[in-house]
Amino acid sequence: MTIGDELLYGQVVDTNSAFMGQELAKIGLRVRQISSVSDRADEIVAALDQARQRAQVVLITGGLGPTKDDLTKHVLARYFHTELVMHEPTLRHVEEIFKRFQRPMLDVNRQQALVPANCEVLHNAVGTAPGMWFNDQGTVFVSMPGVPFEMKRLMTDHVLPRLQAQFHLAPIEHVVVMTAGLGESFLAQKIADWEDALPPNIKLAYLPSFGAVRLRLTGTDDGQPNLRGRMLALLPALRERIGEYIFAEEETTLEAAIGKLLLARNLTIGTAESCTGGLVAHRLTSVPGSSEYFRGSIVAYHNDIKQQELGVKSETLAQFGAVSEATVREMAEGARQRLGVDVAVATSGIAGPGGATDTKKVGTVCLAYADATQTISREYILDRGRALNVEYAAQSLLTMLRQQLAGIRG
Amino acid sequence: MTIGDELLYGQVVDTNSAFMGQELAKIGLRVRQISSVSDRADEIVAALDQARQRAQVVLITGGLGPTKDDLTKHVLARYFHTELVMHEPTLRHVEEIFKRFQRPMLDVNRQQALVPANCEVLHNAVGTAPGMWFNDQGTVFVSMPGVPFEMKRLMTDHVLPRLQAQFHLAPIEHVVVMTAGLGESFLAQKIADWEDALPPNIKLAYLPSFGAVRLRLTGTDDGQPNLRGRMLALLPALRERIGEYIFAEEETTLEAAIGKLLLARNLTIGTAESCTGGLVAHRLTSVPGSSEYFRGSIVAYHNDIKQQELGVKSETLAQFGAVSEATVREMAEGARQRLGVDVAVATSGIAGPGGATDTKKVGTVCLAYADATQTISREYILDRGRALNVEYAAQSLLTMLRQQLAGIRG
Repeated sequence: MTIGDELLYGQVVDTNSAFMGQELAKIGLRVRQISSVSDRADEIVAALDQARQRAQVVLITGGLGPTKDDLTKHVLARYFHTELVMHEPTLRHVEEIFKRFQRPMLDVNRQQALVPANCEVLHNAVGTAPGMWFNDQGTVFVSMPGVPFEMKRLMTDHVLPRLQAQFHLAPIEHVVVMTAGLGESFLAQKIADWEDALPPNIKLAYLPSFGAVRLRLTGTDDGQPNLRGRMLALLPALRERIGEYIFAEEETTLEAAIGKLLLARNLTIGTAESCTGGLVAHRLTSVPGSSEYFRGSIVAYHNDIKQQELGVKSETLAQFGAVSEATVREMAEGARQRLGVDVAVATSGIAGPGGATDTKKVGTVCLAYADATQTISREYILDRGRALNVEYAAQSLLTMLRQQLAGIRG
Repeated sequence: MTIGDELLYGQVVDTNSAFMGQELAKIGLRVRQISSVSDRADEIVAALDQARQRAQVVLITGGLGPTKDDLTKHVLARYFHTELVMHEPTLRHVEEIFKRFQRPMLDVNRQQALVPANCEVLHNAVGTAPGMWFNDQGTVFVSMPGVPFEMKRLMTDHVLPRLQAQFHLAPIEHVVVMTAGLGESFLAQKIADWEDALPPNIKLAYLPSFGAVRLRLTGTDDGQPNLRGRMLALLPALRERIGEYIFAEEETTLEAAIGKLLLARNLTIGTAESCTGGLVAHRLTSVPGSSEYFRGSIVAYHNDIKQQELGVKSETLAQFGAVSEATVREMAEGARQRLGVDVAVATSGIAGPGGATDTKKVGTVCLAYADATQTISREYILDRGRALNVEYAAQSLLTMLRQQLAGIRG
C-alpha cells in the first residue's frame, strides 16, 4: 500500500511497489495486490481493512513526513486503538541527524519520534522517520517512509529478514529469456508445444516491451530438489524453437547484448543515421563501457551531409532517392570508412508526418548493416506516427545488428 | 486498475496509472485508488467488485494480449454474464495491420477482435486490441491494453471525451506554462507572492519532469464570465518573475520550442556530441518538420573522431583533455563549419560509471553553444548515474540553446 495524493494525481510514479515486489518474490512472498491511496484518513482505513482481508502481510509506504498531510502514523494509531508515544532512541537519532547537518530542530522534527504504542520500531539508518512493525490479529502491518532510498534500506535491514523469520515459505525461482525480432503471438505459436509441456509448478509469462518480448518462467516449489536447475534444463528445447530471437538469458537490454558481442569479437562500431536522428547511437552509448567499441556516428539529416560526410553518390540520390536501400547501403559503407570502424549500421526513412514523395510513403524506412565482408539492407513500411516509427526503426536495426554479430544471417 | 503479474513481481513499473491520474485530474475527476492485480481470474473479479464500491468509473489496463496469460476479456465477459462475440470492424482493422506488416495472421490474432457482447468497442488506432466501454448498473468500466502508447491513444481519442460527456463535468480551464532551467522549489520561491494572490477558484500545480517544471493553472467555474481570459490575465505578472525560464505557454516540448525559434530566425542547426551520444540530435529531430532547420550531427565518442571530423586540435586535447570547455568549444565551432550550420551545440563529459581521470571526476560535463557571433560554454558536475547524467546534460544543453536563441544571454 503506497500512500499519497501525488501518486493518484500521477505527479509521482510508484516505483516503491516495484522494488518491494521484486524483493518479496525473492524470499517467496507473492504480492497479492498493490494499492495506491490518498492522504485521506477514511480512505487509508478502508484500504487497510480490504488489504487485511486478502493478505497476511501489508507493507505500507508514505505519509510519514513532518508536514500536515502526513497522516499515516495518526491513522494507524487510531486504527489499532492506541496512541502515539515518544520513542526515545528514535528521538536521539533524529537529534543526532540535525546536529550533524547543523540544522535547528523544530517541534515537527521531534514529532518524527512519535510512534503508535503497539508497534515495534524499525531503525531508519538513513532518515528521521522510523519504520513501524505491527502484529495485529494474525496480520503483519509494516509502515515505512515513502522516500525510496529510506524504504529500500528499511526493507533490506529489517523487513525482509523479519518476514523470512516469521514465515517459512517455499522459494520462487525466476528464469528470464530476452527476445527481439518476433512479436508476442508469433513467439507463442512457435513455442506452444513447449509451453503446453511445462510442469504444473512452472508458469510462463510474456512481457512485451517495444520491439522485444521478455519470457519469464516462474517456478514454485514442488518439494523436489534443484528447482532452478530443472527450470534451466527447459531452455535448450526453447532455444531449438526460437534461438535466433533470443538475445540474452538474463535481464539485460538489446544494446548491452550487442556490446558484449562486439567486445567478444573485438570489433568497433559506428552509425550513420538519417530518420533515427541519433537514437541508435544514443542507445548503443547508453551501455556502460561502450567507449570500448563505439567510436562515433554521423547523423546525416540533410542530403549534403550524406554526400559530404558519408560519400553517398549524387547519382545514387538522384536515381533511387535518399530513402532507398541503395542510399542506406552507401551510408553504412561510408560510415565504416569515415569513422574507421569494423561494423557500421545506417538508417534512412520518412518518419512523418510530412516528407512523403510520389514514390515513397510516410513510414518507409531503409536499414543497412555493413562489415568487412558484406553489406545487407532491408526496407520496412511503418505506420505508427513519427515518434514510434523512429523507435521501431532503431529497434529493428539493433535487432538486425545483433543477429549479424551473433552469426545469424538475417 | 492495472492487471499483470509482472507489476506485482516488480518487473514492470506501473506508469499507466500515473498518466491516467494526470489526465483525469485535468477533466476534474479525482482518482480514488490505484490497484494493481494479478492475472488470476478470481483476483481480478475481487478487485472489480471492490473498485465499483468506491468509484463510479473503473479504468482497467492490461491482459488484452493474444497469449494464454491474457485473461481480462474472458473475465469481463463472465463478470458481466455475457459472452465474447466477433467485432467485424476490429477484425478488419487487425487484418489490415497484418497486411501492412506483411505478416501471416494467426487465429490468436483473429481472437483479438472478440469482445464481450455488452461492450461498446473503442477503436485502437495504434494496435490490435480494442478498448471496451461498459455501462453496468451505474458504473462505467473501461478496459484498455496495457501497452502505454496504445492506452494513451485510447484515453485521448475516446475515454476522456466520453467521460466528460457522460458526467457533465463542470467546465474546467487549464493554462499551462512550461519552464526549464530552474528547480521546483526555486520557482516556488520566486512566484510565492503571485501564487498566494491567486483567486480561490484558480489553483496552481507544479508538475516537475526531468529538468523541467510544468506550471498548470486549473480554473473551476465561479459563475463569472470569461474564466480563461481571467486566467491568461495572470500570466504577465508570472513572466515578470520567471520569464527567462518560460519556454512556452502551451503544452509542448523544449525541443519544439527551440524549433519554432530556429524557424522564426531562419537558422539551421547541428550538434557535436560526445557524452550524450546522439541524444541531443535525437531530441531535436523528434520534432515534426525539424528537417527544415536540422542538418546533421557528428557523434564524436573517440578522440580520433573529435579531431578528424570536428577539427579539435590535438594540443587542446593534450593540454585540457577531451572533457574540457576548451575542447567542447572547438567541437561546437568545428560542427558549425563541417555541417555548414548557423548554430551548433556540443557536449563532452564523463557519464560514468567508469572514465574518471586524475583531474576529472565522473559526472563532469562540458557544454558549448556556437553561432556566427559567439561561442559560450559551461561545465557541470553531475552525480546521478550514467543514464541520468546523459539525460541531464542533454536537457541542460537544450535549455542553454533555447535561452541563447530567445536572446536571453545565459
